[in-house]
Amino acid sequence: MTVVKSTLPEADRKIVGEALQHTLTDLIDLSLVAKQVHWNVIGARFRSVHLQLDDVVTTARTYADTVAERAAAIGVTPDGRAGTVSKSSRIDEVPDGWIKDEKVVAVMIAALDAVIRRVRQGIGTTEKPDPVSQDILIGLAAELEKHHWMFQAENV
Amino acid sequence: MTVVKSTLPEADRKIVGEALQHTLTDLIDLSLVAKQVHWNVIGARFRSVHLQLDDVVTTARTYADTVAERAAAIGVTPDGRAGTVSKSSRIDEVPDGWIKDEKVVAVMIAALDAVIRRVRQGIGTTEKPDPVSQDILIGLAAELEKHHWMFQAENV
Amino acid sequence: MTVVKSTLPEADRKIVGEALQHTLTDLIDLSLVAKQVHWNVIGARFRSVHLQLDDVVTTARTYADTVAERAAAIGVTPDGRAGTVSKSSRIDEVPDGWIKDEKVVAVMIAALDAVIRRVRQGIGTTEKPDPVSQDILIGLAAELEKHHWMFQAENV
Amino acid sequence: MTVVKSTLPEADRKIVGEALQHTLTDLIDLSLVAKQVHWNVIGARFRSVHLQLDDVVTTARTYADTVAERAAAIGVTPDGRAGTVSKSSRIDEVPDGWIKDEKVVAVMIAALDAVIRRVRQGIGTTEKPDPVSQDILIGLAAELEKHHWMFQAENV
Amino acid sequence: MTVVKSTLPEADRKIVGEALQHTLTDLIDLSLVAKQVHWNVIGARFRSVHLQLDDVVTTARTYADTVAERAAAIGVTPDGRAGTVSKSSRIDEVPDGWIKDEKVVAVMIAALDAVIRRVRQGIGTTEKPDPVSQDILIGLAAELEKHHWMFQAENV
Amino acid sequence: MTVVKSTLPEADRKIVGEALQHTLTDLIDLSLVAKQVHWNVIGARFRSVHLQLDDVVTTARTYADTVAERAAAIGVTPDGRAGTVSKSSRIDEVPDGWIKDEKVVAVMIAALDAVIRRVRQGIGTTEKPDPVSQDILIGLAAELEKHHWMFQAENV
Amino acid sequence: MTVVKSTLPEADRKIVGEALQHTLTDLIDLSLVAKQVHWNVIGARFRSVHLQLDDVVTTARTYADTVAERAAAIGVTPDGRAGTVSKSSRIDEVPDGWIKDEKVVAVMIAALDAVIRRVRQGIGTTEKPDPVSQDILIGLAAELEKHHWMFQAENV
Amino acid sequence: MTVVKSTLPEADRKIVGEALQHTLTDLIDLSLVAKQVHWNVIGARFRSVHLQLDDVVTTARTYADTVAERAAAIGVTPDGRAGTVSKSSRIDEVPDGWIKDEKVVAVMIAALDAVIRRVRQGIGTTEKPDPVSQDILIGLAAELEKHHWMFQAENV
Amino acid sequence: MTVVKSTLPEADRKIVGEALQHTLTDLIDLSLVAKQVHWNVIGARFRSVHLQLDDVVTTARTYADTVAERAAAIGVTPDGRAGTVSKSSRIDEVPDGWIKDEKVVAVMIAALDAVIRRVRQGIGTTEKPDPVSQDILIGLAAELEKHHWMFQAENV
Amino acid sequence: MTVVKSTLPEADRKIVGEALQHTLTDLIDLSLVAKQVHWNVIGARFRSVHLQLDDVVTTARTYADTVAERAAAIGVTPDGRAGTVSKSSRIDEVPDGWIKDEKVVAVMIAALDAVIRRVRQGIGTTEKPDPVSQDILIGLAAELEKHHWMFQAENV
Amino acid sequence: MTVVKSTLPEADRKIVGEALQHTLTDLIDLSLVAKQVHWNVIGARFRSVHLQLDDVVTTARTYADTVAERAAAIGVTPDGRAGTVSKSSRIDEVPDGWIKDEKVVAVMIAALDAVIRRVRQGIGTTEKPDPVSQDILIGLAAELEKHHWMFQAENV
Amino acid sequence: MTVVKSTLPEADRKIVGEALQHTLTDLIDLSLVAKQVHWNVIGARFRSVHLQLDDVVTTARTYADTVAERAAAIGVTPDGRAGTVSKSSRIDEVPDGWIKDEKVVAVMIAALDAVIRRVRQGIGTTEKPDPVSQDILIGLAAELEKHHWMFQAENV
Repeated sequence: MTVVKSTLPEADRKIVGEALQHTLTDLIDLSLVAKQVHWNVIGARFRSVHLQLDDVVTTARTYADTVAERAAAIGVTPDGRAGTVSKSSRIDEVPDGWIKDEKVVAVMIAALDAVIRRVRQGIGTTEKPDPVSQDILIGLAAELEKHHWMFQAENV
Repeated sequence: MTVVKSTLPEADRKIVGEALQHTLTDLIDLSLVAKQVHWNVIGARFRSVHLQLDDVVTTARTYADTVAERAAAIGVTPDGRAGTVSKSSRIDEVPDGWIKDEKVVAVMIAALDAVIRRVRQGIGTTEKPDPVSQDILIGLAAELEKHHWMFQAENV
Repeated sequence: MTVVKSTLPEADRKIVGEALQHTLTDLIDLSLVAKQVHWNVIGARFRSVHLQLDDVVTTARTYADTVAERAAAIGVTPDGRAGTVSKSSRIDEVPDGWIKDEKVVAVMIAALDAVIRRVRQGIGTTEKPDPVSQDILIGLAAELEKHHWMFQAENV
Repeated sequence: MTVVKSTLPEADRKIVGEALQHTLTDLIDLSLVAKQVHWNVIGARFRSVHLQLDDVVTTARTYADTVAERAAAIGVTPDGRAGTVSKSSRIDEVPDGWIKDEKVVAVMIAALDAVIRRVRQGIGTTEKPDPVSQDILIGLAAELEKHHWMFQAENV
Repeated sequence: MTVVKSTLPEADRKIVGEALQHTLTDLIDLSLVAKQVHWNVIGARFRSVHLQLDDVVTTARTYADTVAERAAAIGVTPDGRAGTVSKSSRIDEVPDGWIKDEKVVAVMIAALDAVIRRVRQGIGTTEKPDPVSQDILIGLAAELEKHHWMFQAENV
Repeated sequence: MTVVKSTLPEADRKIVGEALQHTLTDLIDLSLVAKQVHWNVIGARFRSVHLQLDDVVTTARTYADTVAERAAAIGVTPDGRAGTVSKSSRIDEVPDGWIKDEKVVAVMIAALDAVIRRVRQGIGTTEKPDPVSQDILIGLAAELEKHHWMFQAENV
Repeated sequence: MTVVKSTLPEADRKIVGEALQHTLTDLIDLSLVAKQVHWNVIGARFRSVHLQLDDVVTTARTYADTVAERAAAIGVTPDGRAGTVSKSSRIDEVPDGWIKDEKVVAVMIAALDAVIRRVRQGIGTTEKPDPVSQDILIGLAAELEKHHWMFQAENV
Repeated sequence: MTVVKSTLPEADRKIVGEALQHTLTDLIDLSLVAKQVHWNVIGARFRSVHLQLDDVVTTARTYADTVAERAAAIGVTPDGRAGTVSKSSRIDEVPDGWIKDEKVVAVMIAALDAVIRRVRQGIGTTEKPDPVSQDILIGLAAELEKHHWMFQAENV
Repeated sequence: MTVVKSTLPEADRKIVGEALQHTLTDLIDLSLVAKQVHWNVIGARFRSVHLQLDDVVTTARTYADTVAERAAAIGVTPDGRAGTVSKSSRIDEVPDGWIKDEKVVAVMIAALDAVIRRVRQGIGTTEKPDPVSQDILIGLAAELEKHHWMFQAENV
Repeated sequence: MTVVKSTLPEADRKIVGEALQHTLTDLIDLSLVAKQVHWNVIGARFRSVHLQLDDVVTTARTYADTVAERAAAIGVTPDGRAGTVSKSSRIDEVPDGWIKDEKVVAVMIAALDAVIRRVRQGIGTTEKPDPVSQDILIGLAAELEKHHWMFQAENV
Repeated sequence: MTVVKSTLPEADRKIVGEALQHTLTDLIDLSLVAKQVHWNVIGARFRSVHLQLDDVVTTARTYADTVAERAAAIGVTPDGRAGTVSKSSRIDEVPDGWIKDEKVVAVMIAALDAVIRRVRQGIGTTEKPDPVSQDILIGLAAELEKHHWMFQAENV
Repeated sequence: MTVVKSTLPEADRKIVGEALQHTLTDLIDLSLVAKQVHWNVIGARFRSVHLQLDDVVTTARTYADTVAERAAAIGVTPDGRAGTVSKSSRIDEVPDGWIKDEKVVAVMIAALDAVIRRVRQGIGTTEKPDPVSQDILIGLAAELEKHHWMFQAENV
């Protein structure tokens, strides 16, 4: 059933759709991981890290919505279900239970690293077929790399 | 490692912790399911249902946070990771791809039904050991049953 | 026609539905009575009482909506029509025309008294069948008894 | 007891007072009717109609207050008690229980029709004796006829 | 020098200009009188009357601006200078020094009475030549008569 | 097809509908003209005039909506399409390209003059058949004549 | 007369100026078309479509301003006059009079389609000469294609 | 009648009371003068000067209130009646009718000059008897001298 | 003198009044203790702890007001005077002077612990006599235990 | 331990520190006293006085914070503990239980009187050693004397 | 010391870092220059230019922050110290003292011209190595060229 | 050219002008230094210090504007150009590159120390010639010494 007629030719639609779908699952997992450590963090820096993690959650949720609706707009159905996220995310699973603040910072640096790498690939593959989707991924990379810097800066 | 000294005796803490953990995974899945159909819904009622689903997402996200932080407050570490959600949620997986509006309404009635049932159980089991946690679940049930009514009312 | 499937067993649904319906008619009448004397109050305390009455109207209207939608949520159709209110309210009819400020205060103490009495009964009858509805009535009682104190305090 | 000295001669005061009193009872009933169907509406258009009805409630409550205070300002005591509303309103009583969305729309068209007719008469009778009250009724007619159009437009 | 070309014929412009100029001086004086007693009021009702007077000041200042700019818009230069106000206002001068609350209420009833009388005349004289200016005076009369009622209601 | 049953008799509906339709096309054109010179104005007064023009755009857009919805409310379908505006507007076409600030002021005085003239006629023709529509045109005339004064005042 | 010195070489300025001018006329017409059907839509989905159309109007008006001011910024005078819009827009004229909701949705899909096609061309032609203007067109395409998806999704 | 017991000895109370009373009449007149020219200004700078004058009105009204209530707080009854202002203000009367923008600027420089001179004297005389009143006059001088600079700067 | 007629029987009123009075003195002292260390905290975590303490102050002040007004509402006069607080609070006196951040965290854990213990007792004793007061104490316990967790989490 | 290096010489630091510490204890007690009578006031003026007292609480709390942080800023550790307040405040203890409105007003006049007297002394002693602290006390005196006037004015 | 691991290869990091550093010093100087003339401007257009300059300051400060944090995010330490700005900025030093409005406009056109030229170069050099940084420079160019147009338009 | 006529005699004007000019350059440099370390700070306290520094920037920018406009108001042209700041600031240059959090705190203590010292001198020299300028410096000293305390408190 063709519900939404894409403004992109079929081949381009497929390339772009894939990049958006990868980004979507990574971002949903990023939001779940950041919440998980937001709740379980302990240590002297508790309050500071607890608040900082919610800034990451805001980025992840906002862009997950933007990216999923961009997929729909080019005629690709986004898939953000728990099972899909659990299978496809590139972020390593975080350990269960209380987790020390410096460990949380390390976990977030690694998680952001994984997401940024796929977003950077998406920026490359979408450039020609769809500069509109590329522009969204560029804006996302700017936010993710800012969080990335901040966690690194406090990990010295 | 005892990080947070519970104000509840050990047996009570366990009962309440379990009720909160069940609610947490159900609520995270509810937020993912509602977003999934928010993006993929089609049909004449598209805009109305699309907006209504974001009200469910707001309830689910707000209470997931409240419930997880309540668990931490009684010394229980909450687990909201993708894998845990995927394995433990009581909500049936929604189908992939575009989905007609009346089907979306049916999906949401079933999903809310499943979550409400466990929350109602939690209200029962937490009453004696921790009226504070019970009060949170009661507030949550009120919101979920309101959404439940609304989807049923438009499904006639 | 079963439109909204109740999460309560039939017997409980009936008890709770009755408590909510009684509260609804009392609250609508309370809002009408408070407005009536808001418009017709005279005397040196005019401005103070005039403003205070709108606080009561806000409580009454907000909770009338909450209570009616709670009824719908458990599958009971609320009835807030003028004829029903006029017949079922427990508040005595206020006299027509200009009304002195100290008389207004006495009228409001009596009106709040009548409504509180039925809400207190509702708290008792709903406790077992539906703690969710009970919680709403408890919150309402807190607001009504606060207004009740204030009018009494200025009636000395 | 002459509490408020009217700026209008006695004959004019009576004509205008009657027009305002009629409008007041109609508007209070309109707000009760709109809330009644706001709570009991069912059908595919549930959410849209549910929200639309609260816009009518806002118009009815705001103007009821304006009209009643205008009556007081010209020395006429307004009467908005449940019994008076129930006896004097020109709106037909709505049926009890769940009510289908297209039926709700028809109910609202008829209710608005009845209120508008009396307001239009009031515009005529108040023109000479009190252009200030007339101006309020004109503003009210504009809002009511806008709601009237909208319900008609969705009833095609 | 013809700066602003009036949309009204010369005779109409003069009639309307006069009505607006009278209203302007009365309103400026009303704002000064209300502030004077706002500062000097004493007695048990101090706080209530003190606040109520600022509502009158708001009406007077807002409409003074509207009326003066309406005059300019029809090519008539408004005159709101202290000397002009002092000479032309219809409000009796209020006594100097501390002033008891019930006396303040009486002063305001008389002041509002004087202003309303001239505004009512203006409504009559502007009807034919300029319904736009008339509409402004009608809106002003509604606010002034509302204040008038309130002060009378608390003077019983 | 009778979609919206008018509250006006047929003859009145036609007179009023025409006045509203004329106003609509004039207001849409006024908004386009004001934007055109907002973008192309040059000269020492650039910033001041640039900002002032957006105040006119706000008036024109807000009242275009009000007037069009008023037409619908009395059962007349408004026509605000580009072709209709281009053919029916009474405002002279403004020249293309950069335009000096004093020329912009002159253009706006003329444009407002043209619109005001038709609105003033509409106030006359709608008085008897529909005081509700007349009241909207009166409010619009007040805003337009205020802009008219301001541009004239700075053109001396 | 060279008023604004372009930061672009003449050839580039011409290419970019043309793309912006085309976009401007299309966006103004889109805003007029969306308002036209916003006022004339009828049918069961009236309220939902009526509100959705104002979202399109907001996009169209906001970007028309951005695009026209971008043209000025590179030294090109934008032309948004009614005659120009009427002659140059790529959107088909919509029919006069009441229009059924599903027809409105179809009209909007076609209108958005036409605008998107030219914007997509503009993204191509401006890439080399002016990435700043291109970035604006990319942001606009993202919004237009989102509206496009939504109307298609509710047209199934 | 001693209503408000001053925290100052009688001699100090008199000196400070006089300084505050002088400031009060000057500030009220400043607000009337600024409004007078706000309404009657003409010339190319109309809009800019028109808006700037309302900033002066805000300063004058805010500090008039502060200064009058400070007088009351030290047991001195403030006098801000039209007759008193007209007799005691140090500001020269402004001419009637339209007034060119550069003339308005000159009028305001002179008016501010007169007010500042008396405020500066008040700062000197209140220093010893009441640093609290002095602090208010210092804050006022800062605002007045800022307006003074701005009008001078645009008068070059 | 019976000022406020309690809705509770005398025995219940006494039990509930005592629980509320205990909570009141503890909460006032909690607010004073939290402010004391908010001002005197030193150490690397200064800013984080300084801000966190104001969140505790907000909880303590808000609930002190709610609890005291609840006492009044059931006819019990609350006592929140400095002497009473100093004598009856269960919180240990904090040391004078600068205090290191980790010591502050320990002080707050102990203070919250003491308050929570009495609130938990109050939840038990008020359950039967007054579910309305109990509900307030439950809400308070939820907030206090959340602060308690946070200070413990950062003390690892 | 020298934590904060004072910008004042030791002798000055001591004088200023004492003035600030006295003010701090008085202000905390003022906030507790005002809350005590805010909860226990009865009589016809209940609502007016109840609200007015919260304005005093706001002043007292805001300046307590400012004054305590000023002490810290000059290297003096502030002491605002319940025991210290109870021992050092200059305000007489208020009676327990319900208290009539006119008695409340008298209590507040006396309490403000006591605090103002010490603040006035502080203004004198801090002038030379620290004009920065003096400026804070001057601002505080202005607010306290304003409350003082208002309570006196309503006590006539 | 490698504090922040760049997501860019070393050669790209160096090119992009340089472009960002140049932009940073130019933007800080632009903010200082705009403030300098904001304070020293004189002439008939004083107020208009004074306000317009603060819009430039807002752009300059906002983007200076964005650009510096982007540098940090790619592992390059930004340098915005006064000495660096003074030595590296491409903007010519503005003259000291009062400066006429038309001269201010010319100064700003030249300053913006200088900054835009380097930003345009940066857009070119960053395109390949880092589209994320390029996107920030493109957004900045859009704002700077808008200010550039406005100052030119008022310089005719 | 005498543009702004000073309200101060020439000798006073010179003394005060110098104090303001010194403060201006120090404040601009303070804002640049605080931003420099805001971007380059690293270490476990990164986030807390990063946010705290922006509070200093806000103080510095707000008072720089106030101080510069105060200079203009007394007829002295302020000089805030990069070269002037670089040459005249009393703050030591901060090192380039990443900088550890405890080092940042030390840098800020020293920078604030230097600025406070000159501001304190300015408070002394301006007291006689211009209490208005002195009052601004006093307010500034209060804010700077508060930041000074906070950085010292976290440096223990």
